[in-house]
Amino acid sequence: MTQTPTTDAPQLQELIDALGAGSVVTDPATIENYRWDRANDPDAGTPAAVVRATSTEDVQAAVRFAAARGLPVVPRGAGSGLSGGSTAVEGGIVLSMEKMRDIQVEPLTRTAVVQPGAFNAEVKAAAAEHDLWYPPDPSSFEFCSIGGNIATNAGGLCCVKYGVTTDYVLGMTVVLADGRAVELGGPRLKDVAGLDLTKLFVGSEGTLGVITEITLRLVPSQRPPTTLVATFATLEDSTEAILAISSQWRPSMLEFMDKPTINAVEDTTKMGLDREAAAMLVIQSDEPAEYAAKEIEEIEALCNENNATEVFYTTDAEEGEAFVVARRMAIPAVEQKGSILLEDVGVPLPRLGDLVRGMAEISQNHDVVIAVLAHAGDGNTHPLLVFDPADEDQKQRAHTAYGEVMDLAIALGGTITGEHGVGRLKRPWLSDYIGEDALDLNHRIKMALDPHNIFNPGAVLDPAALNATG
Amino acid sequence: MTQTPTTDAPQLQELIDALGAGSVVTDPATIENYRWDRANDPDAGTPAAVVRATSTEDVQAAVRFAAARGLPVVPRGAGSGLSGGSTAVEGGIVLSMEKMRDIQVEPLTRTAVVQPGAFNAEVKAAAAEHDLWYPPDPSSFEFCSIGGNIATNAGGLCCVKYGVTTDYVLGMTVVLADGRAVELGGPRLKDVAGLDLTKLFVGSEGTLGVITEITLRLVPSQRPPTTLVATFATLEDSTEAILAISSQWRPSMLEFMDKPTINAVEDTTKMGLDREAAAMLVIQSDEPAEYAAKEIEEIEALCNENNATEVFYTTDAEEGEAFVVARRMAIPAVEQKGSILLEDVGVPLPRLGDLVRGMAEISQNHDVVIAVLAHAGDGNTHPLLVFDPADEDQKQRAHTAYGEVMDLAIALGGTITGEHGVGRLKRPWLSDYIGEDALDLNHRIKMALDPHNIFNPGAVLDPAALNATG
Repeated sequence: MTQTPTTDAPQLQELIDALGAGSVVTDPATIENYRWDRANDPDAGTPAAVVRATSTEDVQAAVRFAAARGLPVVPRGAGSGLSGGSTAVEGGIVLSMEKMRDIQVEPLTRTAVVQPGAFNAEVKAAAAEHDLWYPPDPSSFEFCSIGGNIATNAGGLCCVKYGVTTDYVLGMTVVLADGRAVELGGPRLKDVAGLDLTKLFVGSEGTLGVITEITLRLVPSQRPPTTLVATFATLEDSTEAILAISSQWRPSMLEFMDKPTINAVEDTTKMGLDREAAAMLVIQSDEPAEYAAKEIEEIEALCNENNATEVFYTTDAEEGEAFVVARRMAIPAVEQKGSILLEDVGVPLPRLGDLVRGMAEISQNHDVVIAVLAHAGDGNTHPLLVFDPADEDQKQRAHTAYGEVMDLAIALGGTITGEHGVGRLKRPWLSDYIGEDALDLNHRIKMALDPHNIFNPGAVLDPAALNATG
Repeated sequence: MTQTPTTDAPQLQELIDALGAGSVVTDPATIENYRWDRANDPDAGTPAAVVRATSTEDVQAAVRFAAARGLPVVPRGAGSGLSGGSTAVEGGIVLSMEKMRDIQVEPLTRTAVVQPGAFNAEVKAAAAEHDLWYPPDPSSFEFCSIGGNIATNAGGLCCVKYGVTTDYVLGMTVVLADGRAVELGGPRLKDVAGLDLTKLFVGSEGTLGVITEITLRLVPSQRPPTTLVATFATLEDSTEAILAISSQWRPSMLEFMDKPTINAVEDTTKMGLDREAAAMLVIQSDEPAEYAAKEIEEIEALCNENNATEVFYTTDAEEGEAFVVARRMAIPAVEQKGSILLEDVGVPLPRLGDLVRGMAEISQNHDVVIAVLAHAGDGNTHPLLVFDPADEDQKQRAHTAYGEVMDLAIALGGTITGEHGVGRLKRPWLSDYIGEDALDLNHRIKMALDPHNIFNPGAVLDPAALNATG
């Protein structure tokens, strides 16, 4: 396994000689910016160096340097991760992709070849220049990297109709633990030659290799959506409406906010949301106009059948987008209320009501505010546990509740993470969820591809357990 | 690696005692039916026994029996595979899934839990009872198993719009080489906890484990399509039209047949196809009516711009289906002309013209008829190399041409197999296509999960090369 890191200055000089001083950061003040992602892991280490790679060759050189010395390598996109998947390891190398941002769109094949540091929003914009669309849309799309999206198999709002990141990844170049660069897949819409290694690397959270180039599948531009907003007096009514809609229609967005979330957003936006509502749904249809009208009218009817207190819809794209923006700013809005622990549990849709009710109980039991927002159409919720960082007792109660929410999701047949990844924060729950046998398969594949555990050690998989496997 | 098989009768009695005589076939005449799939591999072995499993537990018992004795295990669905992925191994166990055919549709979550022996058509029919749809549609859908579809990551005609099998697999139960049964994924639309093992097993062609239950994602029923048929006087015009259409529209089907294929189909159907046409396209739009009309009219215009000799379309679903049936029967129709070697090469769409032209040259050079049909919209072609089995020289020329077609596809940036799998027939070309480093990754994962190579030895990966890795 990982040797004791040894990175005295003369050693780093070799790395600087190989990559150029501009690509190797050793200045402590700058390094400080690379220790955390948005999970703010209190156990983050201080890396010996940050490599700002400019090419696959740079990544190979950095990995070879680290491998020869048993140094941990933590790949890093934009640092927007929410599970600690880019937490720096003490004495290791942070391999930042921030300078690798090329995007080449190939309109004839509806593909894009992108470097991992490009932002999701930049990929979308480059595609849009050719009337094409890269669908996956995490709420952080304006400041998250496409490489991070692929490392976590990121989701988003449109996934309910358009699928998640893995559905759009056709191929990649990946640097392995021994420094070799391998091309997997490519711009072919069908390809079944050998094991599907491309899909294995998607969602591997930097534990198997470093992705340095990606071939993405694009689709024609989305049509302007019709947007429906519905409020409900009870959580039950809202979850029943979600189930009715999602089992009968195929909206391109089906988002949920509960009362604490609505109020936090209203505090920020003053856009006139109903502060008394127990829940609000934001739903879109992007079908061709005539069919979209029918779809939205039927969805309206289902909301009304489930006792919606107010329903309205608009075909004005700008007016509709205001509500989507409101939903996307829910996390920063709730963050104004205190420190937060951000959850990402998901359940099969018929259990969504049980999950939401159960989380309300956990909130009461521990006297911790839990603001719930959700990609409701695919059963993926983001409970935000709010606490005062100065109140140690409340902080502890929040952490207890955080674990209980995952236990509840597992008990309901759900997952501990729908789209954010396991990272470091959720590692303790991985075995409870996927079970010892599936965990063993994870260990075997990790050991087969990264036998010395240099890639992102401590993320997803427990180094001690890996040692026992190896 | 695999020990020398030893399956004397007393040993098989232990298997019969464990599973019941009805589940273990040792009668030589019956066993004969399980030696080949549709690839008719001349090197197929004779298995010691065929296990007709009725449950995951049966599969576990059979795998444990085989593992304890180092016997090869070849999983088998409906035997419709085209690359020899279910070719029996001498002295081994064929593990047939033909009795495991349960299908449970869950309309609320739009999922289905199916056993691997169920036919694709049976899954579609069960989904249709709830106004749901399982899209992947290999031409063999009426007689291929869903387990085989998943083992090969099967494609089909609608994939150009709706993606391939892997896009619809949410989870599975898989029996590992040591007999453990592991559940991977499940009925959750988003789930990123740990490595994406579900997607790794999709397309693994029985080399990593035996899939005994699958959770599939379903979508709302497809709308009745509008069908357009266009003929062209030259191959160039047709491939230019394909490129223009697929880069600007999103048809739900975009199929191609060349002159030899058209004529073979016409010989069988007498439906009045244009025997003089160099190429014929069958194209569908399944958009809502008003938009479908627009899409089909624009596609018609693009066909005409590319010198189509005739274009017509119909909104009559039955009339349209006749042309789709004609396309689906192309392989059996060409099979009437002699023995065939069936190819499955695919290229990025801008190279489709080069591929079709190059195959015409190979056909001329070796004086072998190559009838080409294609899922043109995703660049996936099925050249059928026709030869007289009694003419040894022609047979040899056909085999030479078969290899040259794959070499050509690789040279054009294409794949040796788009949807049929590597099996045994294409194994010699795998390394040329994916390269030594990607092959090494395949080997490492195979050795990590099946260290004694009991699962489908000789399929996809070369046992000698695995030995060298292990």
